[in-house]
Amino acid sequence: MTQTVPTPTHLVQQRYRDPEPTEPAGWNEVLQVLHEHRSVRRYLADPVSDDTLRLLISAAQSAPTSSNLQVWSVIAVRDPDRKARLAALSGNQAHILEAPVLLVWTADFARVRQLADDRNAALDGADYLESSYVGFIDAALAAQNAVVAAESLGLGTVYLGALRNNPEDVAAELKLPPQVFAVFGLVVGRPDPTEDARVKPRLPQAAVLHHETYDLAGQREHVADYEGRIAEFYAEQQLSHSWTERVLARLGSVAGLGGRDRLRKSLENHGFHLK
Amino acid sequence: MTQTVPTPTHLVQQRYRDPEPTEPAGWNEVLQVLHEHRSVRRYLADPVSDDTLRLLISAAQSAPTSSNLQVWSVIAVRDPDRKARLAALSGNQAHILEAPVLLVWTADFARVRQLADDRNAALDGADYLESSYVGFIDAALAAQNAVVAAESLGLGTVYLGALRNNPEDVAAELKLPPQVFAVFGLVVGRPDPTEDARVKPRLPQAAVLHHETYDLAGQREHVADYEGRIAEFYAEQQLSHSWTERVLARLGSVAGLGGRDRLRKSLENHGFHLK
Repeated sequence: MTQTVPTPTHLVQQRYRDPEPTEPAGWNEVLQVLHEHRSVRRYLADPVSDDTLRLLISAAQSAPTSSNLQVWSVIAVRDPDRKARLAALSGNQAHILEAPVLLVWTADFARVRQLADDRNAALDGADYLESSYVGFIDAALAAQNAVVAAESLGLGTVYLGALRNNPEDVAAELKLPPQVFAVFGLVVGRPDPTEDARVKPRLPQAAVLHHETYDLAGQREHVADYEGRIAEFYAEQQLSHSWTERVLARLGSVAGLGGRDRLRKSLENHGFHLK
Repeated sequence: MTQTVPTPTHLVQQRYRDPEPTEPAGWNEVLQVLHEHRSVRRYLADPVSDDTLRLLISAAQSAPTSSNLQVWSVIAVRDPDRKARLAALSGNQAHILEAPVLLVWTADFARVRQLADDRNAALDGADYLESSYVGFIDAALAAQNAVVAAESLGLGTVYLGALRNNPEDVAAELKLPPQVFAVFGLVVGRPDPTEDARVKPRLPQAAVLHHETYDLAGQREHVADYEGRIAEFYAEQQLSHSWTERVLARLGSVAGLGGRDRLRKSLENHGFHLK
């Protein structure tokens, strides 16, 4: 593990493995933390205190929210037995057990439904697919602020989409009422420095950033470049993956969804009408 | 407009208008930027350079993405005529015209579909509701990193959910192919300092942060407290709003969705099968 502080140019270069890196237009501590992000999958047992958790959540609540509706909530799970049961429902990833806290981010229409019911008012807009997206987006914006806050404090994180594999069982475990749905988990803890988690390279910027209108055909060459750049990253980890093959394994068939082909039914069972 | 640098305690207090603020457990430049967030709705005409835009997008690409699928893209719109047409499709908000750039964040399965088609491979997993959420979440995580990066550079931002009011027309304007869907816009530019945008208070943390299991009934008192705290904020802006009334106006009826009750149909029209 290198202990030297990487330069801004080097950090942006790492993100793309760009053979011709350029110097960023500006730099500060915030850009440093954002660009240094890596998913952490090995954790020390050090606890995350209530005071630290409060700070992560005030950062999360500082994120934008559609029309100030705030249709999200988060459940902090520290109890090792509950965490183990949630891990068993989410593909049994060891880091869920290792890390001291699992934050479960939910799309939450129960709070506003209670407000409406207490006033005998309607809440018909909540029953549309659109509103489920608002809840998922609100939860994601909030969670990402918490990620950035955590990393600024030297903590590591990794999202847990597999929490959507068994939504009914997750809801029972967390006593989620109707219209509260677990969108994803977020593992938080002190990174185990022996993991040496690296910055994962992303698609060349030219593939994802378009000007004025969208261009599809031009992406073929950028994806081809990316295959070479990420192969270098995989090789450093003694893996012989291809990005394209991994994408096709994940999205090629229903089996790659890990049970999430049932998601529509699960949401409907949980009071999201998705009109 | 006050020019003094607020203390950490004051900044967190502003976010909640908490009558009994406590000192945060830690602080740094990142937490400062996160907690200072406010939506900006008046902009100067100063351009956002390509170099700055590249930095915002490398920050965005540094965000986590589900299984490294990277199923999102962003279109930077600067052309004043195109921006005006998109504004007309999104509730005619003046700041879309004022600000130099509108970033349109999309859930993008066209890139991976092209990969699959080029190899005569299936992409059946993309046709499920689950995958649309993955695209929306990926886009939100990326966009939020861009927001934090922009604010660290002194720029202002505001999300534009109303871009979902007329998805077919937005898609035509941006030449979005099937399976690329505009999730939201993000206005970016130099804040007009005469706006004096304030930090908007959020629900008390006790309403959104739960421990071990979810608690609904306990939220009533926190929401009641919030009504008083946000009334103070509204009063400073010469508004006599109630949060509850605004929530019920937005979600009480289909009319509050601004046309987004059609979203399911629009997604299906655009190649998202939502099984």
